[in-house]
Amino acid sequence: MADKPRILVQLDTDALPSVFDRVVAVDAGIDRIFSYGGVTPQNVMALVHGCIFTRGPADLHNTAIFIGGSDVDAGEALLAEVRKHLLPAFGLSVSVMLDSNGANTTAAAAVAAAGRHVDLTKISSLVLGGTGPVGKRVAKLLARHGGKVLIGSRQKDRADAVAAAIQASVPGAKVEAASVASGGDAPTALDGRELVVAAGAPGVVLLPRKYRTASKRLKVAIDLNGVPPTGIEGIELTDKAAERDGQIAYGAIGVGGTKMKLHKAALLQLFSANKLVLDLEQIYALVGSN
Amino acid sequence: MADKPRILVQLDTDALPSVFDRVVAVDAGIDRIFSYGGVTPQNVMALVHGCIFTRGPADLHNTAIFIGGSDVDAGEALLAEVRKHLLPAFGLSVSVMLDSNGANTTAAAAVAAAGRHVDLTKISSLVLGGTGPVGKRVAKLLARHGGKVLIGSRQKDRADAVAAAIQASVPGAKVEAASVASGGDAPTALDGRELVVAAGAPGVVLLPRKYRTASKRLKVAIDLNGVPPTGIEGIELTDKAAERDGQIAYGAIGVGGTKMKLHKAALLQLFSANKLVLDLEQIYALVGSN
Amino acid sequence: MADKPRILVQLDTDALPSVFDRVVAVDAGIDRIFSYGGVTPQNVMALVHGCIFTRGPADLHNTAIFIGGSDVDAGEALLAEVRKHLLPAFGLSVSVMLDSNGANTTAAAAVAAAGRHVDLTKISSLVLGGTGPVGKRVAKLLARHGGKVLIGSRQKDRADAVAAAIQASVPGAKVEAASVASGGDAPTALDGRELVVAAGAPGVVLLPRKYRTASKRLKVAIDLNGVPPTGIEGIELTDKAAERDGQIAYGAIGVGGTKMKLHKAALLQLFSANKLVLDLEQIYALVGSN
Repeated sequence: MADKPRILVQLDTDALPSVFDRVVAVDAGIDRIFSYGGVTPQNVMALVHGCIFTRGPADLHNTAIFIGGSDVDAGEALLAEVRKHLLPAFGLSVSVMLDSNGANTTAAAAVAAAGRHVDLTKISSLVLGGTGPVGKRVAKLLARHGGKVLIGSRQKDRADAVAAAIQASVPGAKVEAASVASGGDAPTALDGRELVVAAGAPGVVLLPRKYRTASKRLKVAIDLNGVPPTGIEGIELTDKAAERDGQIAYGAIGVGGTKMKLHKAALLQLFSANKLVLDLEQIYALVGSN
Repeated sequence: MADKPRILVQLDTDALPSVFDRVVAVDAGIDRIFSYGGVTPQNVMALVHGCIFTRGPADLHNTAIFIGGSDVDAGEALLAEVRKHLLPAFGLSVSVMLDSNGANTTAAAAVAAAGRHVDLTKISSLVLGGTGPVGKRVAKLLARHGGKVLIGSRQKDRADAVAAAIQASVPGAKVEAASVASGGDAPTALDGRELVVAAGAPGVVLLPRKYRTASKRLKVAIDLNGVPPTGIEGIELTDKAAERDGQIAYGAIGVGGTKMKLHKAALLQLFSANKLVLDLEQIYALVGSN
Repeated sequence: MADKPRILVQLDTDALPSVFDRVVAVDAGIDRIFSYGGVTPQNVMALVHGCIFTRGPADLHNTAIFIGGSDVDAGEALLAEVRKHLLPAFGLSVSVMLDSNGANTTAAAAVAAAGRHVDLTKISSLVLGGTGPVGKRVAKLLARHGGKVLIGSRQKDRADAVAAAIQASVPGAKVEAASVASGGDAPTALDGRELVVAAGAPGVVLLPRKYRTASKRLKVAIDLNGVPPTGIEGIELTDKAAERDGQIAYGAIGVGGTKMKLHKAALLQLFSANKLVLDLEQIYALVGSN
């Protein structure tokens, strides 16, 4: 008998479920997409039960859950609740992927881009806007590779908290925090770094060009801002391994191709088993083959 | 010319339309499913008009409506309103199925299970939790077969009302009501019964094992509770014609296979004509061929 | 590589997105339909971005937006906002169609029907209920053909405003306004007209039969009321070029076949390019080939 159609249940924490995530799911070749908006930990149980109590354990790898929405914290809370209602011990489980605000796929794609040019196990990195959802994910992936990572933020206490959280979850991580409140703080933060990734709020220049060009060791600069101006001055959104002042540059669109491939690859991997949880690390693990 | 795609319009009275009902519809092979949550008698007219005013009468058997949601009373009210807006006299109608909370398919499957082991036209039955949506449907189907039925409930007046309603709609029904407030009331209620079906609230033991095993005439015990403990002590959720203390036992999961087959068969029957209304009796009528 | 699946993003200003528009999209053969209800200018930006930032410019003709809902003014406001978020200069655009309340396709179909019997460049017309969404569209299309058009309405000042708006957007339009508050006003308004189209509120007879039959020049009478009684007395909903008292008559259902063809043709045209905006005139332009 033929396999059952593959169903992706899109649980979105925003009122209107993301068109972006639906289109990517269609283009990944998924047969059916059930899209739900306004999903919360309070109303999600019946949706999860509907996933696991309809098909037999042998067919449940053809049903999967995608968690998205603009609020990454809400997405993480929803993932935690969804997992409570899965019953993997009885085979009654479906795989789940989290990519609220594209944070996981964007961070994974950015680190993948850097890894094409430098040895991530040895280099020293600076993550500007390092306390936002994308920034802290980039920092975590870099720390897992073994290099030194400096979390830059306008709020030093938040950067300290992110650094402590990474150290708690990544044994031996070499992570520190720094206050980077304006462009003037950049030279000190950038000192000795081979890689800088900017994931800050839109419209704020975190690294002026003059400081970037003055840096002797900087090899790769990646900016993840989706709208101009970029946080790293002189980088264009479409830069993809572009040469800028002798440095290798990536902009958000330049990283976007890899991000999209990772997103689709993760969606397809969901349907390879019925117990996967695809969060940051699992999505990043798909980099090698995509 | 090829037939038009089969469209199922899922009208759900809950805010988020049931994933369960959507998956079953996909697995029944329906081409397109339009899922609506928060549907009420007040906002349903335009949805029904959208069904009947788009395709010509010759094609309307390829559009159908499914009414679901956790609130069975709300589902019944919605069905009544939907029917007001169909125009079967002009050929402008679509078929409609009601299965809020799975009550119709569950009751039909439970009675079908009993019918494999006893002659439903002759036996005496007890329905515990007989005033809930599933219980009263089980009682009604049993009464239609002609046997004696006792409606057991913690609230005698509600059981009386259910018995009266069945007698009003099933000419010659042999239905009575009894107060079954705790396990201690079970022996009296069970006296002389060949079949007991429990459809009560979760977590309440309605029939302790000692009384069940003491019953000399009891042949079949069916428990419809989806989570442990079962209302009939000693029955497992997965029991499917299992032998328990010399009696034949079914649990909710054991009945689930038949329930799912009836659900899919009813969905497919919707598309065989454009004027069907598939409620309890019509769904139960599919038992023979499924 | 095969073309990507065609996706129609249905943005509906009502809480529950139209079943009618979804069925038509299915029957037009569109692969996937993403249906959103409760869409407003305030929440639409992310939905539009999800359309244009997922597929490359070469594939964006396979994604399109349909704007619908019962409130035509709200649909027009939504179209204006959607267009702000498209970036056609960068190739990042999708085609958009507006047909809130079916107003564009209905008006286009009504004028197409008239054009089969009279020379629209030369005749004199009366549009009853000419200030409603359908009526003013019918008047605009008639004015563009070059004939004389009289806008009839119970509120003369609103009719004046519609006439002025048409004159502003259609250079040289021959449009005038008249107060037609009851059937008694009809003879004067009808004097010298070859065509009358009624698009008024349901249940109001705007043109009594005696005045219609007394008119010597009237050749074609079209009533767009979907429920009896028709605004033009003596016309049946199903009339399709029917002879009524020596005049050619159309009712809403008689016009409906053409309306449906135009709706489907417009949906398919959406996917021929990624920068089309299909509003009244663009939909009417499809009449010749449908």
